[in-house]
Amino acid sequence: MALVFSIAVFSSPEISGHLNLVPLPSHLQIQPGALSITSSFSVAFQGYQEPRLDRAIERFSQQLARQTGLPIRTGRGDPTAATLIIHCDHASKPAQDVDEDESYSLEVRSDKALLSAPNPLGVLHGLATFAQLVTITPQGFAAPAVKIQDTPRFPWRGLMIDVARHFMPISVLKRNLDGMAAVKMNVFHWHLSDYQGFRIESKKFPKLQELGSDGRFYTQEEAKDLVAYARDLGIMVVPEFDVPGHATAWFVGYPHLASGPGPYQIERRWGIFDPALDPTRKSTYSFLDDLVGEMSKVFPAPYFHMGGDEVNGKQWDSNPQIQSFMRAHELKDNHELQAYFVAHLQEIVAKHHRTMIGWDEILSPGLPTNVIVQSWRGQNALADAANQGHRGLLSYGYYLDLMHHASEHYSVDPIADAAALLNPDKQKLILGGEACMWTEYVTAENLDSRLWPRTAVIAERLWSAPDVRDADSMYQRIGHLSWELEILGLTHRTNMETMLRRLSGADDITPLWVLAQTVEPIREYQREELATQRDTLNSAAPLNRLVDSIPPESKHAREFAGLVDKYVASGFHDATTEKYIREQLNTWAANDALLQPLLANSSILKEDAAISSNLGVVASLGLQALDFARSNQTPGADWTAKAMAALESAKKPKDDLMLTVAQPIETLVQAVSGVAPANKAGR
Amino acid sequence: MALVFSIAVFSSPEISGHLNLVPLPSHLQIQPGALSITSSFSVAFQGYQEPRLDRAIERFSQQLARQTGLPIRTGRGDPTAATLIIHCDHASKPAQDVDEDESYSLEVRSDKALLSAPNPLGVLHGLATFAQLVTITPQGFAAPAVKIQDTPRFPWRGLMIDVARHFMPISVLKRNLDGMAAVKMNVFHWHLSDYQGFRIESKKFPKLQELGSDGRFYTQEEAKDLVAYARDLGIMVVPEFDVPGHATAWFVGYPHLASGPGPYQIERRWGIFDPALDPTRKSTYSFLDDLVGEMSKVFPAPYFHMGGDEVNGKQWDSNPQIQSFMRAHELKDNHELQAYFVAHLQEIVAKHHRTMIGWDEILSPGLPTNVIVQSWRGQNALADAANQGHRGLLSYGYYLDLMHHASEHYSVDPIADAAALLNPDKQKLILGGEACMWTEYVTAENLDSRLWPRTAVIAERLWSAPDVRDADSMYQRIGHLSWELEILGLTHRTNMETMLRRLSGADDITPLWVLAQTVEPIREYQREELATQRDTLNSAAPLNRLVDSIPPESKHAREFAGLVDKYVASGFHDATTEKYIREQLNTWAANDALLQPLLANSSILKEDAAISSNLGVVASLGLQALDFARSNQTPGADWTAKAMAALESAKKPKDDLMLTVAQPIETLVQAVSGVAPANKAGR
Repeated sequence: MALVFSIAVFSSPEISGHLNLVPLPSHLQIQPGALSITSSFSVAFQGYQEPRLDRAIERFSQQLARQTGLPIRTGRGDPTAATLIIHCDHASKPAQDVDEDESYSLEVRSDKALLSAPNPLGVLHGLATFAQLVTITPQGFAAPAVKIQDTPRFPWRGLMIDVARHFMPISVLKRNLDGMAAVKMNVFHWHLSDYQGFRIESKKFPKLQELGSDGRFYTQEEAKDLVAYARDLGIMVVPEFDVPGHATAWFVGYPHLASGPGPYQIERRWGIFDPALDPTRKSTYSFLDDLVGEMSKVFPAPYFHMGGDEVNGKQWDSNPQIQSFMRAHELKDNHELQAYFVAHLQEIVAKHHRTMIGWDEILSPGLPTNVIVQSWRGQNALADAANQGHRGLLSYGYYLDLMHHASEHYSVDPIADAAALLNPDKQKLILGGEACMWTEYVTAENLDSRLWPRTAVIAERLWSAPDVRDADSMYQRIGHLSWELEILGLTHRTNMETMLRRLSGADDITPLWVLAQTVEPIREYQREELATQRDTLNSAAPLNRLVDSIPPESKHAREFAGLVDKYVASGFHDATTEKYIREQLNTWAANDALLQPLLANSSILKEDAAISSNLGVVASLGLQALDFARSNQTPGADWTAKAMAALESAKKPKDDLMLTVAQPIETLVQAVSGVAPANKAGR
Repeated sequence: MALVFSIAVFSSPEISGHLNLVPLPSHLQIQPGALSITSSFSVAFQGYQEPRLDRAIERFSQQLARQTGLPIRTGRGDPTAATLIIHCDHASKPAQDVDEDESYSLEVRSDKALLSAPNPLGVLHGLATFAQLVTITPQGFAAPAVKIQDTPRFPWRGLMIDVARHFMPISVLKRNLDGMAAVKMNVFHWHLSDYQGFRIESKKFPKLQELGSDGRFYTQEEAKDLVAYARDLGIMVVPEFDVPGHATAWFVGYPHLASGPGPYQIERRWGIFDPALDPTRKSTYSFLDDLVGEMSKVFPAPYFHMGGDEVNGKQWDSNPQIQSFMRAHELKDNHELQAYFVAHLQEIVAKHHRTMIGWDEILSPGLPTNVIVQSWRGQNALADAANQGHRGLLSYGYYLDLMHHASEHYSVDPIADAAALLNPDKQKLILGGEACMWTEYVTAENLDSRLWPRTAVIAERLWSAPDVRDADSMYQRIGHLSWELEILGLTHRTNMETMLRRLSGADDITPLWVLAQTVEPIREYQREELATQRDTLNSAAPLNRLVDSIPPESKHAREFAGLVDKYVASGFHDATTEKYIREQLNTWAANDALLQPLLANSSILKEDAAISSNLGVVASLGLQALDFARSNQTPGADWTAKAMAALESAKKPKDDLMLTVAQPIETLVQAVSGVAPANKAGR
């Protein structure tokens, strides 16, 4: 596949600047000229037609209206006069699958635009691309003339949302599906059950939701509505019922399913717990058979995710009946018992005409090859699975709850490590990947800010060519996308102000904004560790703190680091950059005093006193370093040692926050002091 | 009624600052202490119970959760342990009316809170008050201990929204009903039909919506759902079907209803137009009889608004059959013909057990006294109506589309002018008033910003005692309320950033923010006048400009004017205030250069070049004035004359905007020059 993409300055006299496409198309040629977008914008269809396409045009029309503020109302028009002519060749599958052709071609000319695709999935992707092309110009709204041929690199581009730890209302899921469609993701993996909740209505086993959800579950009607909504967006919905572990909520209503004696309560803590299904009883399998059968009526997708992760085996070890069953069946350890369970589960799923998916742990030698392995362990595990004939999905490196930067997710490719060494036939078994959002520390309120715009980066990794890797371009494009997503209805940016205001109860929250822009949530599993120490590792701990209000990545800190690098690279000669750095440092140095009244008045903000004080300390050090640089002096070793000690101390997590701007200030201090930078791993 | 309200510094050690209640209650006593709000907050009921109260508690619980970020989930609890105990005495009417007792009493103690009301309407108001009491403190979220006895001054506190000029989706109306309930408004007046659209499904006359709405109408099911939603909030929904004028959209499907020959088109322009119902044909009345009968099944409220305004009579004048009818019935002019029509219409409305409401124009000597007059003309018209025995509603002074400041609406009282001279029995006929939102220049996108927080000021005028008039207190309280409304789901503040970004297409829109904060939309009917000149007085003109993105009132300009007044009052000695003024003026003086790239790149922003330039000019004059003051000099008459000429020029509307900050700069220039201030009428 030849790649002709470029993010060049635009040649047309009408439009300057960059194309803000996410994901980048596989082939893009920029042409001279642009197509005006006016309120008389119209669409015509040729070829295959279906009501879903009309609804797509209605949505597209609403989106254009929101993007421009023009009173655009587009129905089907006359092909000879239409602004956009869509040719669709044939229908897609009745239930969406990932083996369908999602390609499209889009030509925008100065007089009209032509979108062509084999089936409606490509039409949807082409419309998403078209919407991203529209921009304001000196002559009005317009789309630049382009020729695009586009097809995804991987057929499976998913997002998993855990609705068990924190329930997410349907309206919240729908707006995030809108976001997925905007970046051409095509699988919504709905993690419906876990220790902390069983979140969908079962009519066969109503105690699942009645006793296992605190009343927070989706009715089957709501789930079907979401599935239909997703289908309209070109998204397949794959439900997950996580067994045999992660199932405590099932046992509240049906304790006989468990391997240990009941009664059970809904789990309120976070972590990995002992309860697990009893894999030795026939009744377990008949229950699962009935449940999968019932749910297959709700979820038409050809895949069912059955979990299979993190069984600690303690209930199995301590149950004499299970132990004797294992001896009788020559199952020599819990791994073999789990394999026995998975094999039977796979038969049940297959009986209902579904392909089973499970996490890494389900992989064992006898597993039927059509089972798909989703790996949270990495590309080597995917290679192992592929070598045993299994298709695979990468989620390692795509865990959004771990608060990594967009650039880190961007650098993770499903075809890496051992997977890169597979022969092409085996590599084809790697279907793509899924971003995963586990929600121990995420509520419906801040879900959007944890998903966006970082999910878009993973979407691009899975759609675009493997050599699309320029992080600067990516950050510029997702910065723009981020606002388009707000226009679509997502709240990842605007919600922050509301949360900060609530934290402080104050009218003027400027100093809180200043602090908020310099910090980031701690990463990986540090929050779990601290919560364990504080005994707040549970669902009762409020998620209304500063750490919950800020985005996972500080744009200010990234841009400040860029300025410092530029200034250092100039040999401290770039006076303009020095001025920006100094202004920023002055603001930070003065902020702690301004923030004090807000800190004093809020029980929630109080904990941030130390990090606010540290911001002042490191900003003052940065200003001193600038003074050394300006006066062409090298500070004494004493000053440097003290400064570095203060910076190292300020870099330590405080109240679940990291003072992200301490690192670039350290870079400045080291450069001025002539000290080699320390290892920056982890940033 | 004794008034014991105060907005004093709070005596409790836990909570300092002001109570941000809107509207202010009729009796409020602040007590020592505060009630902690934690995630174990619970509610118990005593007395009368109904499902609506359970839903109210569910909503209240969700609101507390959003206001605090605590995982609050409140169901009915045990009275001995509950945080909040609610006593309700009896049911309210099956269909809400305005003669019901809406009073409540609320006592918050440090251990629990007690809310008591005669019926559910008072319970709803008491819960709204409680929610406004909750605030962050150094010890967590809390409500201050208070004793409140509260009852409204006027029984009718309404908001009218015109959904004919621009259609407003149900979801947009619902969130604004939430806003109304938060400030205890109790009537939603739904202006459902006008020249430009007939917005509700009629099953009897389906061509009304099929041909008269461009497909933008509410189904009866949606309307019933909204009525039920409103009832849950303690809001009565009064529909308006505006006849005999303002009805062009009816005639598209039913041209025989009109007084002139068809065919008719949906009106696309704004203004007052000729088409009117034919009041001389029996078929007109049988149509109205059927329609009112049908709609009375959808709208259970005991009132129907039938419009009656702005009939220009041209179609009547030029229809010979109508002229001969008038002669035959001794109707000597169009006013008498309209009175004839209104009398028959009233009979129809009464037949369906509804009380008719109409605008000023329906008042004529023979009108049955139970008809209610809604006055856009003023308190004298209300007094006339009262003297003829009619109940009345004030909307004069409450037209939100005219872009007045909150303080101006706040100063308008229904009992003023001739109404203040009525004897008490006649005064009682004045039921209250309605804020009116006509939507020629308002879309679903910016409706919230045109309604809030100004609607809250009118709500307070209609609820609170007449001597609650302190504008400073009002601005402080609605500033706080404004954020609470965003938490409820309104978008009046957060939407502005999205609109500004769309205007510019830029990533950094700081200079656009700076300009946006210094300007206001032009007022009264100036926009109509300019649109007439530009030939954009119609529904095709996009509402995506700077004037559409900014709020009706500039908080920055108001605060800047306050600083200037303070500085002038200090005899130019207040150095701290001078410093703030100077910093602000420096920012404004430098802004035009920074804004130029954004202006150049956007066809929509281009028009704002002149006002941006003017901001720089007046800011520079302000800085010069400060320099004179600092150096204790009086500028020469030449300088003053030139400065005043430049300021007068800068104050003139530009592209539908006013440079609001020019006025306080003029104040400064005049003070420094020793010149008496000009008449500030209109500001």
